[in-house]
Amino acid sequence: MLTNTRNTRVEWCDCDPAGIIFYPRYFEMFDTSTTMLIERALGMSKFEYLKAYDFAGHPVVEMRARFRATTRFGDEVAIETALLACGRSSFKLAHRLTKAGTLAVEAFETRVWTIRHPENPERMKSQPIPAEVLARFHGTVS
Amino acid sequence: MLTNTRNTRVEWCDCDPAGIIFYPRYFEMFDTSTTMLIERALGMSKFEYLKAYDFAGHPVVEMRARFRATTRFGDEVAIETALLACGRSSFKLAHRLTKAGTLAVEAFETRVWTIRHPENPERMKSQPIPAEVLARFHGTVS
Amino acid sequence: MLTNTRNTRVEWCDCDPAGIIFYPRYFEMFDTSTTMLIERALGMSKFEYLKAYDFAGHPVVEMRARFRATTRFGDEVAIETALLACGRSSFKLAHRLTKAGTLAVEAFETRVWTIRHPENPERMKSQPIPAEVLARFHGTVS
Amino acid sequence: MLTNTRNTRVEWCDCDPAGIIFYPRYFEMFDTSTTMLIERALGMSKFEYLKAYDFAGHPVVEMRARFRATTRFGDEVAIETALLACGRSSFKLAHRLTKAGTLAVEAFETRVWTIRHPENPERMKSQPIPAEVLARFHGTVS
Repeated sequence: MLTNTRNTRVEWCDCDPAGIIFYPRYFEMFDTSTTMLIERALGMSKFEYLKAYDFAGHPVVEMRARFRATTRFGDEVAIETALLACGRSSFKLAHRLTKAGTLAVEAFETRVWTIRHPENPERMKSQPIPAEVLARFHGTVS
Repeated sequence: MLTNTRNTRVEWCDCDPAGIIFYPRYFEMFDTSTTMLIERALGMSKFEYLKAYDFAGHPVVEMRARFRATTRFGDEVAIETALLACGRSSFKLAHRLTKAGTLAVEAFETRVWTIRHPENPERMKSQPIPAEVLARFHGTVS
Repeated sequence: MLTNTRNTRVEWCDCDPAGIIFYPRYFEMFDTSTTMLIERALGMSKFEYLKAYDFAGHPVVEMRARFRATTRFGDEVAIETALLACGRSSFKLAHRLTKAGTLAVEAFETRVWTIRHPENPERMKSQPIPAEVLARFHGTVS
Repeated sequence: MLTNTRNTRVEWCDCDPAGIIFYPRYFEMFDTSTTMLIERALGMSKFEYLKAYDFAGHPVVEMRARFRATTRFGDEVAIETALLACGRSSFKLAHRLTKAGTLAVEAFETRVWTIRHPENPERMKSQPIPAEVLARFHGTVS
């Protein structure tokens, strides 16, 4: 299955008055990590792949996370993202954020492939993941 | 057990290019809801209660959430927050966000009562919740 | 000219490790204040007025701000927003944020009325403000 | 005078329903750029230099910005930050954000060197910039 690791730094703007990261910022980081994983699998930027598949995005429908160690501004962290499973119209990912090799956060998320609702473009609707995307998610095409 | 409901509105700044709320913003909302619940229980602002109990905050150590319906800018939502359980140094909360009576998000979080580490003020350390706070959390004092 | 005042509270999620508001969060607040001013002038939500005038938003093209006093989590603040001037396709606003009557921040912004570029829907293009909107901005219609 | 250029990418989490960056996110980026410039000048991380000089941060007291071109998720941008001037307790910086060589944003900010107020640690107080820091800001020490 697909994996991708990226390095980033916790910044002042990510932290709260306790001096540690404000935890919703982890989900911003993980969202970017998911984007990068898919961009790499599809060989396109998110801007391009939203257009190519005429879809509305892959919103999170379920998630859970454990915060095992704190991080604070200036901390260099690594985020390892893996595609765990792929259903008809949804897929599951895991993120592991480490600081100097120590696991600080692990998160699991389920995302749904969505399109604009054909009868009401203001609404979103789940949709089977295109075969071409599935092939790349499964690594049978690269 | 304690509960608190507040009304708020999803704003433009909370939403992403799909036109719906960017989901980490829900956790900002829930964090504020937790603050408001505790402020109400203790009869003090967070600024005051951090000082009164000389503590460093109540970071989230575990959480999970399900997103059942989308919300977008302009949506009036209600957030009902409940204290579910209280341990020696941790406590569990649930948040239910509804739009026009329909459940859009439910989230569960476990938080830890922390103080500055006595030997290293840059680190945090879990600490038993003060008896006075527990009494108010259990509603035996009001 | 139009004015609107709203009350809000600086929250933990708005603050940085210095314990004060992280200043970009003021601009989130002012963006919401601008939305509320226009919603009130037009008698429609932003979601509705974007559709009604088939436009792409009113991005900020120029802004300046002075921060005279700090605010921190728990501070109740008032934001007074005024439409200062209205050009053909742009308009100017001022925001004054006060805490207990003391001016903490003043900001000025210029926004442009934009539509999707007719030849390239991915780009935005400035556009004359509709006469009906101008009339409401000038208060000749209410 | 000091300058520093860094490359970053506008992400989905930075963008609004118009599909472009939500402009307060530029100020998050510029805040990180300022941190990086000072870290480089002082040869210490922000966490270290706050401790080394026992100070409370360098909040922005005045800023202005012009937004000349839009950016959207996936755009690779360069941010060039320069220290423009240095007073007794304040300093001025400029940020220029470019996309493929084209200027998209220019911003100017004035920051103040602050310490915890000696009589009230909850308040901040401006303070002369230490001579050692000034020497490094002026490039007479490296």
